[in-house]
Amino acid sequence: MSMVIVGSVAYDGVETPHGKVDHMLGGACTYIALSASFFTHPKIVAVVGDDFAQEDYDLLASRGIDLAGLERVPGKTFFWSGIYSEDMNDRETTATDLNVFADFNPKLPDSYKSAPYLFLGNIQPGLQHAVKAQMDETSLRLTGGDTMNYWIASFRDELLKTIAGWDFMLINDTEARMLSGETNLRKAARKIQEMGPRTLVIKRGEHGAILWHGETHFMVPGYLLDDVFDPTGAGDCFAGGFMGYLAGEGIAPGEGAPDRDILRRAVIYGSVMGSFCCERFGVERFRTLTRQEIDGRYQEFKDFTSF
Amino acid sequence: MSMVIVGSVAYDGVETPHGKVDHMLGGACTYIALSASFFTHPKIVAVVGDDFAQEDYDLLASRGIDLAGLERVPGKTFFWSGIYSEDMNDRETTATDLNVFADFNPKLPDSYKSAPYLFLGNIQPGLQHAVKAQMDETSLRLTGGDTMNYWIASFRDELLKTIAGWDFMLINDTEARMLSGETNLRKAARKIQEMGPRTLVIKRGEHGAILWHGETHFMVPGYLLDDVFDPTGAGDCFAGGFMGYLAGEGIAPGEGAPDRDILRRAVIYGSVMGSFCCERFGVERFRTLTRQEIDGRYQEFKDFTSF
Repeated sequence: MSMVIVGSVAYDGVETPHGKVDHMLGGACTYIALSASFFTHPKIVAVVGDDFAQEDYDLLASRGIDLAGLERVPGKTFFWSGIYSEDMNDRETTATDLNVFADFNPKLPDSYKSAPYLFLGNIQPGLQHAVKAQMDETSLRLTGGDTMNYWIASFRDELLKTIAGWDFMLINDTEARMLSGETNLRKAARKIQEMGPRTLVIKRGEHGAILWHGETHFMVPGYLLDDVFDPTGAGDCFAGGFMGYLAGEGIAPGEGAPDRDILRRAVIYGSVMGSFCCERFGVERFRTLTRQEIDGRYQEFKDFTSF
Repeated sequence: MSMVIVGSVAYDGVETPHGKVDHMLGGACTYIALSASFFTHPKIVAVVGDDFAQEDYDLLASRGIDLAGLERVPGKTFFWSGIYSEDMNDRETTATDLNVFADFNPKLPDSYKSAPYLFLGNIQPGLQHAVKAQMDETSLRLTGGDTMNYWIASFRDELLKTIAGWDFMLINDTEARMLSGETNLRKAARKIQEMGPRTLVIKRGEHGAILWHGETHFMVPGYLLDDVFDPTGAGDCFAGGFMGYLAGEGIAPGEGAPDRDILRRAVIYGSVMGSFCCERFGVERFRTLTRQEIDGRYQEFKDFTSF
């Protein structure tokens, strides 16, 4: 089933111990949509400048991504750049040029409004709320989203109002601690679930992820790669794999045990997509990735976690 | 089957965000033996001073630990103290008074020499080697051990000669990177396996552990506690649970798939024992812990990792 994704489409400059790329396709919405496209039909809502290259449109289109909501306006596309530390666990941002993204006011094409799945990428919480308000509530089956430290610190009230209407939330461990005010992840998760999202995924980078669903939790370790070329976008690819799998299966999980099993599989697909993302710079890995490779790695997760 | 453990028996002073204890029973050998005592019959080789308290002897004896190899000499028992950071991920050592441990030269009682299982705790690599040489090689079925940054940096040649004769090694991720010279854990593991130990467990603190056995690996996440009171000794309790389980079952794993499954279960028991250790200060949790609680938590690991 189709899935609307709102967020940033950007150009990135990235330096890691494995190399340096000055200008390449990036942005959370891009990564989420590319990842989800292996499972379902993503429809993106984003804005780019008139410098956005035809070959980048073509890549997104080649993956079956609906670009009706990709607005093109005069000016330059959002640009971000950063340098990763030797162990890749830290990065320093060297540029954040919002450009046309500064005035982003997402408007959904009519053809998007009856989509049953909605993923609200990391943008201003008020805009996330406004996007959900444009959807046809009777068709909408599952809403989830992401956020970041800046919104948690400076837009807290708006963020709390927004996530109160989400079915699930996907954030990293630092953000979970910040949002909840709790250092301990069990306690942090309980507090965030009380804020609205009954299902919560806490991403822990190389250390995997934890899913909370009702009273239960599920933990998956991070995939061990021989080489991490570029971790940019891995968390977004996790989100795309997670919700993309649910949308592809046409599932809106409730409280029961079968729903728990489905969500666990979605977390594994999220982990799989995040791991592939790191194997090449930027979105490169998604040019050649196949569903067979994805299912092969899913099986690897089973093999190295079961006892 | 019985299992010989060599290492430190000490007194510790520990401060964590949950409280402060100035003087309590500690030491790697103590934690390993207490943990292993829930699965098998540990025999310890260690040295204490004449300040070693009767109640501490009594605790060890009450767990069925053979104390024939616990030498008592004039002077003070090894003392260590440290302060943990707010998030417990760092600790600062405030005292390391070797005392009688400085001249520790482990001598095995004759009654120990035919034990089939040998765990060489973190002491000078030459001493580890000398302990193994005292064992009856024809009875010995499984030898493993631990080490630390100091020995890796300053006694490298001796350490390499020692671990060449081990079946398994249990170290943390920082030590694994230091020993192998590789940042990437897959590469680090391969190099360490080539040094001798066919089986390797890399402990990652709150992030769990990875087992390498031949060409395969197994990953387990760390147990999520509501409160970590004191992480001191958790890694040693992991070692005690891991080898204690193998010794209790009378298993010396080879290369096959059943051996792989047994080693995985041993890693889970190690994780279970490490998690219990953190629930109270020092060795307190082991005064009341039951095998039923241990098996209950083993089942929890199954529940929160299976998909």
